[in-house]
Amino acid sequence: MHLGDTLFEQHQARLQRARQACVERACWSPFPELPARYPEAAQAQARGSAAFQAHLGQDGASRAFALSQPGTTGTLGAEVSPYTGKPLGVVYPQADIDVLFDAAQKAIPSWAEATIEQRLGVLMEVVERLYADHLFELTHAVMHTAGQSYNMAYAGSGVNALDRAIEALVYAEQAMQAVTPHARWERQFGSSTIALDKTYRLVPRGVAVCFTCASFPTWNAWPSMMASLATGNAVIVKPHPATILPMAISVRVFRTVIKQAGFDPNLVTLAPDTVQDPIGKRLVQHSKTAIVDFTGSVAFGQWIERNAYPALAFTETAGCNTVVLESVDDLDAVLRSLATTMCMFSAQMCTSPQNIYIPALGVRTSQGLVPFDSVARQLADAVQRLTADPKKAAMILATIQSPQTLAMLQQMRAQGAAHGQVLLEPKPYVHPEFPDARTSTPLMLQIDTSQRALYGEERFGPVSFVIRCGDGADALAQATNDARTCGGLTAFLYSTDEDFIARAERAYAHAGAQLTTNLTGAMPLNFAAAYSDYHVTGLNPAGNAALTSLAFVASRFCIAQSRRPSRAIVASKP
Amino acid sequence: MHLGDTLFEQHQARLQRARQACVERACWSPFPELPARYPEAAQAQARGSAAFQAHLGQDGASRAFALSQPGTTGTLGAEVSPYTGKPLGVVYPQADIDVLFDAAQKAIPSWAEATIEQRLGVLMEVVERLYADHLFELTHAVMHTAGQSYNMAYAGSGVNALDRAIEALVYAEQAMQAVTPHARWERQFGSSTIALDKTYRLVPRGVAVCFTCASFPTWNAWPSMMASLATGNAVIVKPHPATILPMAISVRVFRTVIKQAGFDPNLVTLAPDTVQDPIGKRLVQHSKTAIVDFTGSVAFGQWIERNAYPALAFTETAGCNTVVLESVDDLDAVLRSLATTMCMFSAQMCTSPQNIYIPALGVRTSQGLVPFDSVARQLADAVQRLTADPKKAAMILATIQSPQTLAMLQQMRAQGAAHGQVLLEPKPYVHPEFPDARTSTPLMLQIDTSQRALYGEERFGPVSFVIRCGDGADALAQATNDARTCGGLTAFLYSTDEDFIARAERAYAHAGAQLTTNLTGAMPLNFAAAYSDYHVTGLNPAGNAALTSLAFVASRFCIAQSRRPSRAIVASKP
Repeated sequence: MHLGDTLFEQHQARLQRARQACVERACWSPFPELPARYPEAAQAQARGSAAFQAHLGQDGASRAFALSQPGTTGTLGAEVSPYTGKPLGVVYPQADIDVLFDAAQKAIPSWAEATIEQRLGVLMEVVERLYADHLFELTHAVMHTAGQSYNMAYAGSGVNALDRAIEALVYAEQAMQAVTPHARWERQFGSSTIALDKTYRLVPRGVAVCFTCASFPTWNAWPSMMASLATGNAVIVKPHPATILPMAISVRVFRTVIKQAGFDPNLVTLAPDTVQDPIGKRLVQHSKTAIVDFTGSVAFGQWIERNAYPALAFTETAGCNTVVLESVDDLDAVLRSLATTMCMFSAQMCTSPQNIYIPALGVRTSQGLVPFDSVARQLADAVQRLTADPKKAAMILATIQSPQTLAMLQQMRAQGAAHGQVLLEPKPYVHPEFPDARTSTPLMLQIDTSQRALYGEERFGPVSFVIRCGDGADALAQATNDARTCGGLTAFLYSTDEDFIARAERAYAHAGAQLTTNLTGAMPLNFAAAYSDYHVTGLNPAGNAALTSLAFVASRFCIAQSRRPSRAIVASKP
Repeated sequence: MHLGDTLFEQHQARLQRARQACVERACWSPFPELPARYPEAAQAQARGSAAFQAHLGQDGASRAFALSQPGTTGTLGAEVSPYTGKPLGVVYPQADIDVLFDAAQKAIPSWAEATIEQRLGVLMEVVERLYADHLFELTHAVMHTAGQSYNMAYAGSGVNALDRAIEALVYAEQAMQAVTPHARWERQFGSSTIALDKTYRLVPRGVAVCFTCASFPTWNAWPSMMASLATGNAVIVKPHPATILPMAISVRVFRTVIKQAGFDPNLVTLAPDTVQDPIGKRLVQHSKTAIVDFTGSVAFGQWIERNAYPALAFTETAGCNTVVLESVDDLDAVLRSLATTMCMFSAQMCTSPQNIYIPALGVRTSQGLVPFDSVARQLADAVQRLTADPKKAAMILATIQSPQTLAMLQQMRAQGAAHGQVLLEPKPYVHPEFPDARTSTPLMLQIDTSQRALYGEERFGPVSFVIRCGDGADALAQATNDARTCGGLTAFLYSTDEDFIARAERAYAHAGAQLTTNLTGAMPLNFAAAYSDYHVTGLNPAGNAALTSLAFVASRFCIAQSRRPSRAIVASKP
């Protein structure tokens, strides 16, 4: 029995449960959401921490990340931990791109000729090995590159990302299983019968290039890689130069499992680059590139969408996520929820709210109308309360991934003060465990709609705009216009008016933002659950592909058929 | 009950049978393949002929095709029958493009908010009305624009095209039904439970532009239109200026049925143009274009693939379809089948073979080796026999759609004589019913692989190249290289060597051509059966989309979700 088949059987129950989850879209995960619930958590966390430490350079000497892939021409790597401000000291193989493409192409045929089950078995095993052997190592790697908190790195970049990976496998399987492998076809032509045996082969597109982003590398990368690999393609991973380690660890796990299953490990390789000498455009326009998956900036994402041809492009970029605060029952609960979500990972998530529209006359509540200025002030106070205590701030804000974000904050603060009002000044807080961490509390600006130049694009990081607009209808029109024209993944609505909610649901659906209405309480408003929440609609500039729908997988392979006279007898009437 | 639901119930049995056919890919059609088997055939054919005649201008005066769509600024139309050489005298509404886009956009919301079943019900009714009320009218319209024979216009452009339309509906339904409309999701966050009701809406992309070709308009157009409409989009049809009438009739039927079902008929409109003043590029780059379906030339198809962004593009262009003649049991049977297929509609099908590779040493047969020259000669003789009798020629060759094809034939003849050998001279034959018909028997050239400039691109029309190459392996390498680099939809292989066949199946699958092996007998080799044969792989320049796979439909709509706290009680642990 092929090892792929053994692995498929081994993971069949989990995959079956995942299929059900994708149909029903109710809550499910095979993994514990909290680090403490991980099996033998203390030992596993200690092992993960040690594994991470073992990657790092010592005493100023860098340490080479071992990756036995072909075409290595040197080493590179200049990651700096947002927590310590110090270089990680890890260097990675710098790759001759042409060698990687050749190796990837060579690896495809035997992988493509494996059965769907064999490929799924191998890839489900990758998921299991990432979970069982590398999760806390990855948690630390994400912390010290992306700058996430430990808990978010575990949950958001760990188990939730693995759930998204399994989800992609489910949809890939569904798209492939829709094609019967064989058929017998028989028809009369005049007086004779023609009987044909037909064979339908799934042919992969070729080599996929997967770009991963600085702040949330695994969450988009794993499902993209799984979608390409399950359908028979190879993947070259191009990590953001600031956040290579989580992807290097991932690539090595993919390679190891693939090799152990008897396939060519060059199905998955790493092509890191530096800020000084980027290779992204060369990868996209390489003659052998068949698929591009991209997570990152709007500018480069749109360049890819325009220039990837003839490669397919799947993008997730960014946008202006909006809030409409029209009317509420419990204003305090709403503001607490909003404040929490605005602070999560210092708003360095593609789902973080940025533009908060409040009617000029204020917000209707069960206690009466609360004026605009008062709502704005209370929201700023709620944010301030969350971030005043460094220990709490550390858990929720974590760090600022890029020094450029701090520069942007200063620039926004100056412009906001000139054209509006600074509701909350950003300032560093001292992280209790990492005193040198790059941190900032959020900047909040109060502004009116004449200043759209300030908020009419994504300002990636902890800045939000409380925007004075007309009435509720105007708030909705402004907010959905932001989503439609600037892009927007998520949207948040508070209203006690069912007619208004119905209009907003339609308007946001057409603007292409995933809407959350009247949610308060313990769940972060922008939490996106695998198997249940679709991430990105494809309807606005925030990206052209959803995690995960059939459209995300169905074009990653083609169908080639062959037909010939059936070996059974071809009858001929007398 | 909504009329859409009534229609869905009415057509449910047919749709269910079509779903089964798409899964099993065995032979099925709800329609009779031959005109004589049509219910009350004689009367129906007489009615169809009369309906066609009623479209035509009389005594030099043109007749306006009535289409009550908005934005009409004038009339145009200059179709000439390839059978009579005379203008049809039909003029069509010339449209203000912006008005059509605005009307299409306005028509979308109520259509998009109808249920999947309602849309499918309406579109299955369109299929039924085209079949029951317009099939022979369309048959004549296709004959006198595309120049097909009566039987092909009925079968290929009639019932088979309707089958492809139903097939597209099946896949659109499958992709849409994969998205549950509602879910209830519940999870613990800390000590509290969050329960959300989630709604998933299917949001159409917007306005699709469907380009239809001169020689085979309905076969690609109907399934493309169905794929876009079923998923909630509107369609603007841009017919080739030489072949407007079949699409004008189609558009009117779509509009009538849609309107009767209570939707806005501007979901489907016609945007004809002239050769002198083409509007294709303006349509593709219109800011409101969301989807482009294209059938036609490689050059414009590739321009669309490059320039449609941000619209999605689905293309079927053309290519060099190849034959490899390696070894056979019964050479006569093989050559008869090849000759028939080479003559079908004067090779004006995107599936017609063009490049015939024969090993220099000849073809192994059960009677021994037959030398190259002899095989070439016998093939030319077989073609000659099929076309010598004008009555038989009329049935199989039909007419030449475009006068440019005759010019191309002369040019190819001259170049072929200079660089190779003319196996068969093209010459007009006199059509028994239409003495003024534009006709030509096929041109066949014998040539070697040094003359690839001649055959290394599609020569649309009745020209074929018998190419002397090395051995069987070389024949296969040359042929698959043609498909890979020049495009190729179909491929035909004759070999008695199972190892060679297995290699060829793999090689053609990677080159992206649909392969038919060792077929002889009554079926045209290039016959593509709806529900069974995938048309175009997307793996080579012959097009990027298959009729029909999930990939053809899945990205025509997006998924927008909204979620809010469940009306059921949100529990909170003490």
